[in-house]
Amino acid sequence: MVMIKVAVNGYGTIGKRVADAVSAQPDMEIVGVSKTKPSAEALIAGKKGYPLYIADISKKADFEKNGIPVAGSVEEMVQTADIVVDATPGGIGAKNRQLYEKYGKMAIWQGGEDHDIAGFSFSSSCNFDEAKGKKFARVVSCNTTGLCRIIKLADDAFGVEKVRATMVRRGADPGDAKRGPVDAIVLNPVTIPSHHGPDLQTVLPEINIVTTALVVPTTFMHMHILQMDLKETGDRDKILEMIKDHPRIGLIKGFTGIKSTAELKEYASDLGRPRSDLWESCVFEDSVSIVEGKELYLFQAIHQEADVVVENVDCIRAMAGENITAAESIALTDRSMNFEAI
Amino acid sequence: MVMIKVAVNGYGTIGKRVADAVSAQPDMEIVGVSKTKPSAEALIAGKKGYPLYIADISKKADFEKNGIPVAGSVEEMVQTADIVVDATPGGIGAKNRQLYEKYGKMAIWQGGEDHDIAGFSFSSSCNFDEAKGKKFARVVSCNTTGLCRIIKLADDAFGVEKVRATMVRRGADPGDAKRGPVDAIVLNPVTIPSHHGPDLQTVLPEINIVTTALVVPTTFMHMHILQMDLKETGDRDKILEMIKDHPRIGLIKGFTGIKSTAELKEYASDLGRPRSDLWESCVFEDSVSIVEGKELYLFQAIHQEADVVVENVDCIRAMAGENITAAESIALTDRSMNFEAI
Amino acid sequence: MVMIKVAVNGYGTIGKRVADAVSAQPDMEIVGVSKTKPSAEALIAGKKGYPLYIADISKKADFEKNGIPVAGSVEEMVQTADIVVDATPGGIGAKNRQLYEKYGKMAIWQGGEDHDIAGFSFSSSCNFDEAKGKKFARVVSCNTTGLCRIIKLADDAFGVEKVRATMVRRGADPGDAKRGPVDAIVLNPVTIPSHHGPDLQTVLPEINIVTTALVVPTTFMHMHILQMDLKETGDRDKILEMIKDHPRIGLIKGFTGIKSTAELKEYASDLGRPRSDLWESCVFEDSVSIVEGKELYLFQAIHQEADVVVENVDCIRAMAGENITAAESIALTDRSMNFEAI
Amino acid sequence: MVMIKVAVNGYGTIGKRVADAVSAQPDMEIVGVSKTKPSAEALIAGKKGYPLYIADISKKADFEKNGIPVAGSVEEMVQTADIVVDATPGGIGAKNRQLYEKYGKMAIWQGGEDHDIAGFSFSSSCNFDEAKGKKFARVVSCNTTGLCRIIKLADDAFGVEKVRATMVRRGADPGDAKRGPVDAIVLNPVTIPSHHGPDLQTVLPEINIVTTALVVPTTFMHMHILQMDLKETGDRDKILEMIKDHPRIGLIKGFTGIKSTAELKEYASDLGRPRSDLWESCVFEDSVSIVEGKELYLFQAIHQEADVVVENVDCIRAMAGENITAAESIALTDRSMNFEAI
Ligand SMILES: NC(=O)c1ccc[n+]([C@@H]2O[C@H](COP(=O)([O-])OP(=O)(O)OC[C@H]3O[C@@H](n4cnc5c(N)ncnc54)[C@H](O)[C@@H]3O)[C@@H](O)[C@H]2O)c1
Ligand SMILES: NC(=O)c1ccc[n+]([C@@H]2O[C@H](COP(=O)([O-])OP(=O)(O)OC[C@H]3O[C@@H](n4cnc5c(N)ncnc54)[C@H](O)[C@@H]3O)[C@@H](O)[C@H]2O)c1
Ligand SMILES: NC(=O)c1ccc[n+]([C@@H]2O[C@H](COP(=O)([O-])OP(=O)(O)OC[C@H]3O[C@@H](n4cnc5c(N)ncnc54)[C@H](O)[C@@H]3O)[C@@H](O)[C@H]2O)c1
Ligand SMILES: NC(=O)c1ccc[n+]([C@@H]2O[C@H](COP(=O)([O-])OP(=O)(O)OC[C@H]3O[C@@H](n4cnc5c(N)ncnc54)[C@H](O)[C@@H]3O)[C@@H](O)[C@H]2O)c1
Repeated sequence: MVMIKVAVNGYGTIGKRVADAVSAQPDMEIVGVSKTKPSAEALIAGKKGYPLYIADISKKADFEKNGIPVAGSVEEMVQTADIVVDATPGGIGAKNRQLYEKYGKMAIWQGGEDHDIAGFSFSSSCNFDEAKGKKFARVVSCNTTGLCRIIKLADDAFGVEKVRATMVRRGADPGDAKRGPVDAIVLNPVTIPSHHGPDLQTVLPEINIVTTALVVPTTFMHMHILQMDLKETGDRDKILEMIKDHPRIGLIKGFTGIKSTAELKEYASDLGRPRSDLWESCVFEDSVSIVEGKELYLFQAIHQEADVVVENVDCIRAMAGENITAAESIALTDRSMNFEAI
Repeated sequence: MVMIKVAVNGYGTIGKRVADAVSAQPDMEIVGVSKTKPSAEALIAGKKGYPLYIADISKKADFEKNGIPVAGSVEEMVQTADIVVDATPGGIGAKNRQLYEKYGKMAIWQGGEDHDIAGFSFSSSCNFDEAKGKKFARVVSCNTTGLCRIIKLADDAFGVEKVRATMVRRGADPGDAKRGPVDAIVLNPVTIPSHHGPDLQTVLPEINIVTTALVVPTTFMHMHILQMDLKETGDRDKILEMIKDHPRIGLIKGFTGIKSTAELKEYASDLGRPRSDLWESCVFEDSVSIVEGKELYLFQAIHQEADVVVENVDCIRAMAGENITAAESIALTDRSMNFEAI
Repeated sequence: MVMIKVAVNGYGTIGKRVADAVSAQPDMEIVGVSKTKPSAEALIAGKKGYPLYIADISKKADFEKNGIPVAGSVEEMVQTADIVVDATPGGIGAKNRQLYEKYGKMAIWQGGEDHDIAGFSFSSSCNFDEAKGKKFARVVSCNTTGLCRIIKLADDAFGVEKVRATMVRRGADPGDAKRGPVDAIVLNPVTIPSHHGPDLQTVLPEINIVTTALVVPTTFMHMHILQMDLKETGDRDKILEMIKDHPRIGLIKGFTGIKSTAELKEYASDLGRPRSDLWESCVFEDSVSIVEGKELYLFQAIHQEADVVVENVDCIRAMAGENITAAESIALTDRSMNFEAI
Repeated sequence: MVMIKVAVNGYGTIGKRVADAVSAQPDMEIVGVSKTKPSAEALIAGKKGYPLYIADISKKADFEKNGIPVAGSVEEMVQTADIVVDATPGGIGAKNRQLYEKYGKMAIWQGGEDHDIAGFSFSSSCNFDEAKGKKFARVVSCNTTGLCRIIKLADDAFGVEKVRATMVRRGADPGDAKRGPVDAIVLNPVTIPSHHGPDLQTVLPEINIVTTALVVPTTFMHMHILQMDLKETGDRDKILEMIKDHPRIGLIKGFTGIKSTAELKEYASDLGRPRSDLWESCVFEDSVSIVEGKELYLFQAIHQEADVVVENVDCIRAMAGENITAAESIALTDRSMNFEAI
């Protein structure tokens, strides 16, 4: 098989996970990852054997004096790849677009960039086939990915008339020692609705949705409170069955005693997941409720660092033009990572 | 005027605030407050001149050797009062009921006790008149008080068909150094709906409401995300006007830059409010939205330690049989405390 | 009496407290405070009757459309004052120096600026008299102020051979909803010693001191772990007596049950202190220990927002050339604010 | 080789890690682990193939209806083992002693129990040989283990005259969603010294040490601030060399940018460590300082959940009577777990 050559521009929280996920695939390989300065993550890239390219080649000596070999510049890296996954911080990605165009490379951006950067936003469970033949794509954000999966599922099951969703977001990633808040519930934004609804509509344009979002002082996961007005009368057993069958949605059982994001991450850690990652959305079984026949309620926890990672892999595969269905790609991605939804 | 003699059983987070609020009223006086052991709060009771009674009189020497004078036992305190505000920890209050009955005293419990303890649950803005002639009452919890005020207002304005509310709750009060969580979003409960809906219905039985509740690692305030299906088409200006006119609901303007519970408490602190207390519900003006004509959305922050305090004062007044309307009592309570909603 | 005219440039966390403290003094008045944009704090300045000046006069309309009257530009404010307290964010103060020089005004900076900005660093308990006749001074930071007070006291009592101190610092002020960390202990700096030792030596040059500093996810107060090698054998009772007699150091008794910064701030709040401020250093009585005769150990909590406020007032008085001793100024400052150390 | 049969009584935070560490050893096997009720951890035990025994056999049906097979009672488990690692919560372990005696089994307790439970306290780097022939032992706590390693090293290098150490402790483990504090620095204890000094002396009785301890709102790791008066003049290079050579102490380089417990745990996670565990003490290279010739200062971070795990394995080996040195056991333990100190 011809391997798809993937470069990861921006080897940070998302980039390092995408690199490992890509490496685990039988049909892909990492040809390079990039950093801006020597750091623990740069060291890790070396230990994992990923060729390390740097944004500013004049800093090469800085890396090398700390024992981190440098393969070249980001521009050089781009040339070696078939496709670039851009996981630089939000806003930087947009500046990189012309570089990818210059060398005629396919590129995938993350949710920190606007939909317009690629004109196409991706979710494995919703629009895999549309990615085929695309030169540019954007994998939607962690929160939007979580919304896409469950709303698509509910829409397939009963039809979704309207969605009301609240995102209680983590303030900082666990490894981030700078961002807050320390002791506050922050409305982000204060206005209603938040941007998450329109973002979801870049993938599922027909969904009527209003979202609200807050930030709280925690690091592990986001929590979604979801309410959907269904077109048909809901059936709790059916929806639980569909969740169990969904490759990217897990179901947390009541007897586990798991009632929080902390206990859920502990469970992922005990499962031996790399970096304790939860690539699946995690729906709390006991929360799944049908109210007055046509209203579906549920809580789901979203691991912000992980859920988009598997989507990036599928997006690569679709764009690279493999003759494969969404279900096949998802299955291949997950199996290669030993990932089975909890 | 004959002063209403009030005893506060349980001089803790709520009790100490009720004592100060009662003291500020022209028609009430504190005849005693109670503690179980010597502590900073017991010291404060002394400094404020409140006669201090203790639950277990055998501990009298413990108090006195630390310079805290003891006026007698809780049983003695009850006898000196016309009405007892029971602000002991949830569950303890129920055990005290027979003591109040024994001496034929009126009593008010807090939201930590069940509705059945009194058979009547109180909210100043909703059912003041019903408290008249009652021997026992329960002021609903901080969250339910916050829900009562705004839902009653919306119901008066447009009629409320259905309410969906999420309570993002503070993990511990600011002075509590034991309770967590440290880094978790905790579903409390995991099941949907939470008990807050039925609790609201003890005051407003006709409201159709579904509530969900989470706990997060913060201390300052709760945050409510409220969505209401209105019976009539909503009018944003009208609702903002009604909020401005409501004595117990404040409106946070966008230009203040206040976007979080932390910034809001800072503002209360800057206003010189005692203990930085926000007795009012705090609605964020920019969040108040009418969606599709008949859906009202808004965020409100609730200061858990404070909002029920003024309600206790009104409840005392109603139960004591004063010939006064709800609006008059609320105005008197607030004016006596120099409280004008922000 | 001729009142000292004081302007506060930068009406934020420190500035707003200095303004209130100055206003409470019989020999001083606030002629202006400054802000850069409309905000809750700007609104408060108006409510308190402080003339509000703004850094960029072209933004005047922004303030006024939100009902906040503007008295003029910062440059105008400076001209109306005898002395300016600069409480702008660290680094900005240095840029303001030439403005104060231009109009020949005395100025006081805060601990966020370097010692060199004024060439003289101030602590009421240590070098009040040296401030007399000075045109420029800098009140040392909250942590250094806390160190100065207790080390001077121990040095006066027994002579201090060497100090080893660790500052466990709050991550963000309570009203700050942006800064972290959320879940981390941050070495700040990683290197040993931290800058606090040399900073203390700007006030007490003869003290041999090594300091270390960390930041943790809390907002209320800093905590200091102090160890001092004494020149003479220590005497616990004597040091406790001296602390009790010190106007700016409080002593937390064991029976209060106060074991944390949270419980301590709650106590300040119950005492009715404005903004729950603790202007005093708070030494935990039970922690004060003499080990092996000549080693003194203790914990002290420092309210970062408050302890420097009273020092600014004394510094103004000394610089303004009043014929007054340190003890007299401290007593006057504190009495005017109803401040008696706990 | 005859395998040492190990049972883990109390499959929680420590117990589950000990079970995995034991399983990885060539000379040991897990014959059973125990839980009190069905839970996520009980499910994990099953997935890992550890026979699950339960404290109260009458609850067997509870486990089984949730698909968790039960092998028998804890009493039965004890009989199948050569040695029991008791990792039940502090205080419970003491009650289990007579069970181990009844069946003549060797047992190891954790730091939550008193030294007296076994009369012998263990640290791999300090007193491995003394464990030989012991029937009962106690592995010292996470903090004491961290102190033992570095103090022994410094003592070997230069002689240690006196140690002053502050432990800034995590409030709760990451998976614990109940314990706080949320926003407080808690003195634990308020008195000085804390119990950690005497606890260290159960292993290194000759060390003169004074410790202080605080709890802060974080979950990932403890941080130690260590100061040692050395008998001989210190040599920074030598101590760094010795740390590099120590199998259970890692050295965090400045260029990694790691300045906090959060960034350190992220690094462990990136290294692919199971559960992101840091079995080694982590000394920050830039903090290691010699002051005035004979004073050594440094910061070290301690992963509370992990450092004692490898010590338990060595302790088992020593007690089981294998003819092996400390260095050999440590090397075998670590190699079997793919653990090389960072
Ligand atoms: N962290 C999350 O939870 C999360 C979740 C979903 C999506 N995203 C999105 O993923 C993207 C990346 O976010 P992240 O959290 O991984 O950020 P990050 O800061 O953790 O990592 C970004 C990486 O990019 C590198 N970088 C910075 N500037 C660069 C440049 N000019 N050229 C090359 N590399 C550069 C940095 O070294 C860093 O390694 C953003 O769009 C973000 O919105 C993040
Ligand atoms: N804290 C809040 O945010 C909040 C908000 C609304 C309602 N409430 C409700 O108010 C009630 C009191 O809660 P709190 O937070 O003030 O509790 P708290 O623990 O702060 O105070 C309770 C007080 O009761 C005293 N006490 C305990 N046992 C007693 C006994 N047997 N006899 C007399 N006094 C005793 C304690 O000394 C303490 O001072 C509860 O029902 C609670 O649910 C609390
Ligand atoms: N916050 C603390 O805990 C603390 C403690 C001791 C000392 N300090 C020191 O006090 C100083 C002020 O810190 P803070 O915490 O009060 O800051 P802050 O950010 O709370 O307040 C600074 C104020 O300055 C105003 N400002 C900003 N730029 C300005 C400009 N160019 N001209 C005029 N005003 C301007 C802002 O509007 C704000 O009101 C710093 O030197 C800081 O290091 C702070
Ligand atoms: N968590 C840490 O950071 C840490 C670090 C070092 C040492 N320790 C010590 O290790 C010991 C265990 O602590 P932990 O944090 O692992 O506790 P934990 O609560 O995480 O786990 C304890 C386990 O014991 C089980 N258990 C409870 N009662 C039992 C009984 N009667 N019989 C059998 N099993 C029972 C529980 O199901 C649980 O699985 C304590 O002595 C503690 O002080 C803990």
